[in-house]
Amino acid sequence: MITVALAKGALLKDSVSRFANAGLDFSQVLDPSNRQLMVPSPCGRARALLVRNGDVPVYVAYGQAQLGIVGYDVLKEKNMPVATLLDLGFGGCHMNLAVKSNSGYKQAGDLPPHCRVASKFTNCAKTFFEEIDLPVELVHLTGSVELGPLTGMAEAIIDLVATGRTLKENGLISIEELFKSTARLIGHPLSLRLDNGDLRSIVESVQKQTVFSNSSA
Amino acid sequence: MITVALAKGALLKDSVSRFANAGLDFSQVLDPSNRQLMVPSPCGRARALLVRNGDVPVYVAYGQAQLGIVGYDVLKEKNMPVATLLDLGFGGCHMNLAVKSNSGYKQAGDLPPHCRVASKFTNCAKTFFEEIDLPVELVHLTGSVELGPLTGMAEAIIDLVATGRTLKENGLISIEELFKSTARLIGHPLSLRLDNGDLRSIVESVQKQTVFSNSSA
Repeated sequence: MITVALAKGALLKDSVSRFANAGLDFSQVLDPSNRQLMVPSPCGRARALLVRNGDVPVYVAYGQAQLGIVGYDVLKEKNMPVATLLDLGFGGCHMNLAVKSNSGYKQAGDLPPHCRVASKFTNCAKTFFEEIDLPVELVHLTGSVELGPLTGMAEAIIDLVATGRTLKENGLISIEELFKSTARLIGHPLSLRLDNGDLRSIVESVQKQTVFSNSSA
Repeated sequence: MITVALAKGALLKDSVSRFANAGLDFSQVLDPSNRQLMVPSPCGRARALLVRNGDVPVYVAYGQAQLGIVGYDVLKEKNMPVATLLDLGFGGCHMNLAVKSNSGYKQAGDLPPHCRVASKFTNCAKTFFEEIDLPVELVHLTGSVELGPLTGMAEAIIDLVATGRTLKENGLISIEELFKSTARLIGHPLSLRLDNGDLRSIVESVQKQTVFSNSSA
């Protein structure tokens, strides 16, 4: 039995569609009335675990799921021992540094040393500020990071930006991009080494679908 | 201007009602169509920040909110430098150790040393296992912790239990209680020391309401 970890939320629909091409039907997880967190595929060969974004690399790292689909942002933030197999291309967004639009800051280097920066992605933020050698105080928040600058708690935020609507509505602007994020297919390293072909055939089917989607996009 | 941090979710309705008794009307945050995260009270004296549970102690610790209402579970997990002012009595739930009902484990001491325990509250879990001198490997999850034992990733979980329905639906049982949690009124220590009476009068009004609610319950 192959177990696949799928992230609830924005990536779910495309994730289900990629596995469908590999013959694994997890469409039940898209039914709004579905309450099950473990969903078998009708073929009986596999099941899906429906978990939060941040938990996908955990289930794959511990081998409870052999494969998973998760955003590069989460993968980088969690830094778990998993193998990245494919860039699936969907779920595109940017990890950006943003400030109040009237702050006058044009780039990261303009921020005052030891200022506060709020983020849900404090590991990504830490790496970024270490690389540009700017000491800052990181404040970890779990949601609505845009409130950081609005309340005066933080000079800047590091957050995922998809459309930019939330920033704009809150009088914030992006001044630097840390990296671009897309969905990735990840795997449990040991399961991949011991694979008798089942995992490889799924990965190859997902890859074909990916090449097709990206070229037709 | 007094700023109050309110937690989205189960505690919100009662939190709004406690501040209403102190003359601060934040009922706008209960409107399902409300998208604002900073909500002024009509009296003009105060505003509410609508944030996630885990972020309430952060805004209060940094002084961006002078007061806040949050569950004891979050307060203990985050361990931020805030003053606990009142036990408000509502939002009661238990932080429990739970295992598969067919596991045979009757108490924490039955767990095999170095087994895995999954939790959203890994700081609380760490303290608990250190106190009973049982070395375990804690796995931090951000949601659906009950999947830990179901997938075989963890032998046990430490999680908040309100009605026990989720545990039961997933074939799990509580075997030990770490602590009981209720909502707490917290304050920013420096703001309380510099208070000219405004904060004290709010705290006293909330306290009267609390005594009344608890005695009539």
